[in-house]
Amino acid sequence: MSKISVSIAGGSGYTGGELLRLLLFHPHVKIKQVTSEKYAGKPVFKIHPNLRTITSLRFSTIEELKDCDCLFLALSHGRSLHKIDFFCGLAPKLIDLSSDFRLLTTEQYRRWYGINHPRPELLTQFVYGIPEIHRQEIKSATRVACAGCNATAALLGLYPLYQTPLCHPAKTIVEVKAGSSQSGRSPSPGSHHPERNGCYRVYQPTGHRHIGEILQELSLLWDSSFHFTATSVEMVRGIQAVSHVFLSEPATEKDIWKTYRQFYGSEPFIRIVKDNSGLYRLPEPKILSGTNFCDIGFSKDPLSDHLVVVSALDNLMKGAAGQAVQNFNIMNGLPEKTALNFPGLHPI
Amino acid sequence: MSKISVSIAGGSGYTGGELLRLLLFHPHVKIKQVTSEKYAGKPVFKIHPNLRTITSLRFSTIEELKDCDCLFLALSHGRSLHKIDFFCGLAPKLIDLSSDFRLLTTEQYRRWYGINHPRPELLTQFVYGIPEIHRQEIKSATRVACAGCNATAALLGLYPLYQTPLCHPAKTIVEVKAGSSQSGRSPSPGSHHPERNGCYRVYQPTGHRHIGEILQELSLLWDSSFHFTATSVEMVRGIQAVSHVFLSEPATEKDIWKTYRQFYGSEPFIRIVKDNSGLYRLPEPKILSGTNFCDIGFSKDPLSDHLVVVSALDNLMKGAAGQAVQNFNIMNGLPEKTALNFPGLHPI
Amino acid sequence: MSKISVSIAGGSGYTGGELLRLLLFHPHVKIKQVTSEKYAGKPVFKIHPNLRTITSLRFSTIEELKDCDCLFLALSHGRSLHKIDFFCGLAPKLIDLSSDFRLLTTEQYRRWYGINHPRPELLTQFVYGIPEIHRQEIKSATRVACAGCNATAALLGLYPLYQTPLCHPAKTIVEVKAGSSQSGRSPSPGSHHPERNGCYRVYQPTGHRHIGEILQELSLLWDSSFHFTATSVEMVRGIQAVSHVFLSEPATEKDIWKTYRQFYGSEPFIRIVKDNSGLYRLPEPKILSGTNFCDIGFSKDPLSDHLVVVSALDNLMKGAAGQAVQNFNIMNGLPEKTALNFPGLHPI
Amino acid sequence: MSKISVSIAGGSGYTGGELLRLLLFHPHVKIKQVTSEKYAGKPVFKIHPNLRTITSLRFSTIEELKDCDCLFLALSHGRSLHKIDFFCGLAPKLIDLSSDFRLLTTEQYRRWYGINHPRPELLTQFVYGIPEIHRQEIKSATRVACAGCNATAALLGLYPLYQTPLCHPAKTIVEVKAGSSQSGRSPSPGSHHPERNGCYRVYQPTGHRHIGEILQELSLLWDSSFHFTATSVEMVRGIQAVSHVFLSEPATEKDIWKTYRQFYGSEPFIRIVKDNSGLYRLPEPKILSGTNFCDIGFSKDPLSDHLVVVSALDNLMKGAAGQAVQNFNIMNGLPEKTALNFPGLHPI
Repeated sequence: MSKISVSIAGGSGYTGGELLRLLLFHPHVKIKQVTSEKYAGKPVFKIHPNLRTITSLRFSTIEELKDCDCLFLALSHGRSLHKIDFFCGLAPKLIDLSSDFRLLTTEQYRRWYGINHPRPELLTQFVYGIPEIHRQEIKSATRVACAGCNATAALLGLYPLYQTPLCHPAKTIVEVKAGSSQSGRSPSPGSHHPERNGCYRVYQPTGHRHIGEILQELSLLWDSSFHFTATSVEMVRGIQAVSHVFLSEPATEKDIWKTYRQFYGSEPFIRIVKDNSGLYRLPEPKILSGTNFCDIGFSKDPLSDHLVVVSALDNLMKGAAGQAVQNFNIMNGLPEKTALNFPGLHPI
Repeated sequence: MSKISVSIAGGSGYTGGELLRLLLFHPHVKIKQVTSEKYAGKPVFKIHPNLRTITSLRFSTIEELKDCDCLFLALSHGRSLHKIDFFCGLAPKLIDLSSDFRLLTTEQYRRWYGINHPRPELLTQFVYGIPEIHRQEIKSATRVACAGCNATAALLGLYPLYQTPLCHPAKTIVEVKAGSSQSGRSPSPGSHHPERNGCYRVYQPTGHRHIGEILQELSLLWDSSFHFTATSVEMVRGIQAVSHVFLSEPATEKDIWKTYRQFYGSEPFIRIVKDNSGLYRLPEPKILSGTNFCDIGFSKDPLSDHLVVVSALDNLMKGAAGQAVQNFNIMNGLPEKTALNFPGLHPI
Repeated sequence: MSKISVSIAGGSGYTGGELLRLLLFHPHVKIKQVTSEKYAGKPVFKIHPNLRTITSLRFSTIEELKDCDCLFLALSHGRSLHKIDFFCGLAPKLIDLSSDFRLLTTEQYRRWYGINHPRPELLTQFVYGIPEIHRQEIKSATRVACAGCNATAALLGLYPLYQTPLCHPAKTIVEVKAGSSQSGRSPSPGSHHPERNGCYRVYQPTGHRHIGEILQELSLLWDSSFHFTATSVEMVRGIQAVSHVFLSEPATEKDIWKTYRQFYGSEPFIRIVKDNSGLYRLPEPKILSGTNFCDIGFSKDPLSDHLVVVSALDNLMKGAAGQAVQNFNIMNGLPEKTALNFPGLHPI
Repeated sequence: MSKISVSIAGGSGYTGGELLRLLLFHPHVKIKQVTSEKYAGKPVFKIHPNLRTITSLRFSTIEELKDCDCLFLALSHGRSLHKIDFFCGLAPKLIDLSSDFRLLTTEQYRRWYGINHPRPELLTQFVYGIPEIHRQEIKSATRVACAGCNATAALLGLYPLYQTPLCHPAKTIVEVKAGSSQSGRSPSPGSHHPERNGCYRVYQPTGHRHIGEILQELSLLWDSSFHFTATSVEMVRGIQAVSHVFLSEPATEKDIWKTYRQFYGSEPFIRIVKDNSGLYRLPEPKILSGTNFCDIGFSKDPLSDHLVVVSALDNLMKGAAGQAVQNFNIMNGLPEKTALNFPGLHPI
């Protein structure tokens, strides 16, 4: 099988670096170019120190990008949009990791990003890139918009339940704990180690942008009873979403098990984690660092309609670069786990 | 003014050590004895290394305890109960930091602790030790049962709201993030550093024992719509409670401000933390280490009935030893801040 | 006793904030002004969140500074120097926390800072501010230059030994582990949480600037056999210096004990930490957060001339603001521990 | 190629779990059995939560062990020794990860472990398992004793220098910073999170057992000028060794470069890390988590004979299980990087 040539626009950020790491070990991929306007000409390992001796690639500029089979966009939000025609012209397949094409309508962009999306006609051309929800469309898609990391964690925990009558209408509150890599590579007063270290900072009690994509995928209206709070916690990689679902119909834990199993039974990257003994009884992000798993567990209050769903993932992997590679594999008819079989470390 | 003599039963644990630290610097206190069965005879600084050169006290056994003006009980849960008559005989004033006398009825003990409380007649003799709720009773009390640390954090955030019509009936979900010192001084597989470090472990999705005291103080029934989830996080000291309150009446942020100000306006240890700029806009536990503050902030979703309340404290201070000393000051007619004026460190 | 009026030039940094915290609780001090060019007009608690409700002070500009009894300079290195005449005109007593007046000669400034010190005549007017070495001179000094934090940790561990024949000539290698607050309040790529968290970064294998002051105080020449390596470690506050001393004369651990006891026997802030049992057998920085202690311990290799000395302190306290307040107390004839009696927290 | 059958005696510890993780993804290996006396019958993922869904293996007892092609011993120190004849009878190739067969003479075991080694005749049958030093012998070895993790970090940094006249005789001081996983899976007061978190604990100022193997491999006598200090630091995985070498001959940094290049030029797992810019200029353990690299860098004091060598590795990988698999590959004529090509994560 001849290799698939790929390039990465925006290769100096954390998701770009993670993509690079994965693709360098992908047996069917040849990386052509990786861009960084700031570090053009420099070896990529200067920015991604884990890649020292792994690759001799150097950064190019976006302008220098050449044709390839699949182009990954790992640019900051808003920057894919600007040059989207240029990017579309470079490759028949395009996988965007930014938020620029996740929402389907201009109304939603106005509401959640406060912008008038300049290219509304493109929005429906992008498939929302969560394979567990849109695998069939992704198979034949030429353009995929990968989901936000917090949205991925919340959605994977909730989606199966929302396909049942249990959650119509349910009140749901999602609490997301997020690591510092989520905010990217640029230092800021809030990312300064003495301030960020050991912090539990409720940075978005309400109104988080990712709510937009979650409502869209759960087919909920804005005025629904869906609530979402995000807190920065002491962690570099990782997201844990604790979702409090108030079921609209009685259900036992067995019912919930069944719902998840039916939906995720054959999913390669979803694990149901719900044990009665041991230390890791419900999902924890730390053992997922570097993996593409989304672990999902739950606990039903026997005395009320309260269901606690816990989902965890690595925001740079299943929440970004790993998801992108999974989509790449699907779009190219490759086994879905290719280049994504790292099991994670313990202890860590 | 002559000094008040005090002793501490159970002085080798973390709350006992914290009590000792505070009382050693209390201008009106003379510490008579501190007990530890295991370390009897040893200098206390061997167990509490921060007290090296601060005191030459050595541990006694409980049996050796002599009369004093006020006895603090910092024993493990269940152990105060066993010898309560002996303890009551030693001192006219008694402050218990365990869970043995927090609940008012045997029904509650059966429900939340699964035990038949052997001394039901004593339960109503103890005042529940949150000064912001029970100051008047504490002033004349001879026996105080300090509140649980998670319960204190949740209650201080919610109590004022529950005194208004806003929360009748409200649905409330409390998410508590807890540091590792909460589980005490004994090593266990779950406290082993390689396993506990960096962990986000939802250890009690539902059914936490502290719910009992919270319901009691909020005058709620068990089958109410109060929900509580606790997660162990990467932190040694500290609790952050994020409470999601669904208000039963429309309210603006100004209304909420007013409610808190009316209730807590002159409280020495409650700070309302709700800023529009800066890094520390809502309460964070890390800057509260060593202090007796409970910081409280909130954010109202402008588009729904969802109110997010964030409260934070140091579990060993306002959640245990600091609360005990505050109660001691009140019971003895001393200025409430005596020995409790440490402002906390930043950065940390 | 009437209060001593003090002001702080440079109050928005970490050492300025720590000074402020200490002086606000100093019974003989009245804080007049605290400056910050950037935050002039803003309440200090916006920058130092631990001081919320503790003080209503607002930042002034340096230009607005008025006369006071004692002026603290907590400016970035190089900035005290520029306006030194202005500052000297404001107060009869001046305590500088920067590196601008620590070295005694222009040669040393050229060598270690690569600058031609513009005011060489002032250098000998400043007393080097380690009380354990220069207490007598500090008592009558009007100008004190507080020592560098790494230098303080290293010097306090080594100074007594260098007063004996044991260390003439000794080969000494100091390894310093430093927390992130040492680099101050400004974010940088190296202080960005995802990069700084969990890091062990040997940032200065040789040639550290603090070597200059250490050699000066140990009366060593530059070409001596003194070596110093500094590593950034996972910690916000704290320094641990592990010094490897190769003794020039045979000595037992008892001899070393005696040397330290003779020298530090009555020092209020030095503790010898050398236990055979327990967890904290040698000095550790974490239990020193917020304290003015420098803990010192040692271990002698029974089979060689190798002596390991471990010293630890809080870089913002004994290594900066605490040291400054201790000097202030000495200069003003006050008990040395005034405002510095916080014993530190455990666990933390 | 038919698969090589392997078993692991002692599979519930951290090195056993890491071995299992690596071998499960080794293309030429079939894992037959993994033992744990305590967890016999339980699925391995209950103890190694990262292996959930990766394997359905369950623990066996040692007694149940059957023949295999290669047996790994990942038992606690002292336990391989006891049953060594039984183990040798099970497999033609044996790789021991304990300290039981690292030293070559009974004198050394008496000196460093205080034991009379009961099977001195076996000591010379084991090859000391650092491939960079003993690759030729390992190729034909049937028994390999993997090196201690601290010893590996120190030796890989120093060995090439000691093959030159630069270090004869040199004075060398090694400072090792060690993560908490080094002490294994059993909780203890020292590993209790509130005590271990954020600690910098000089647990072995002198006299560390690993000195024995280091001296052996560097061909030094016990009374040499080699010194070694170990400190527990805030880290789960990882070792950083900072070695201070006082060269006996003048040398430039170029000379040192040349020495390392000559020695390690073609080594698959050694990287020389010595940059003038960027954040990761010298080796840091955090980006090595999960990898088999030992990164080595250095800095020469231009004004003295002081050379600082920094080496870093993952104690469970290059310091244990990774080293074991590398040896396994060599012993079986497989490409050395097989199953060991994980590049590590950044950020982390």
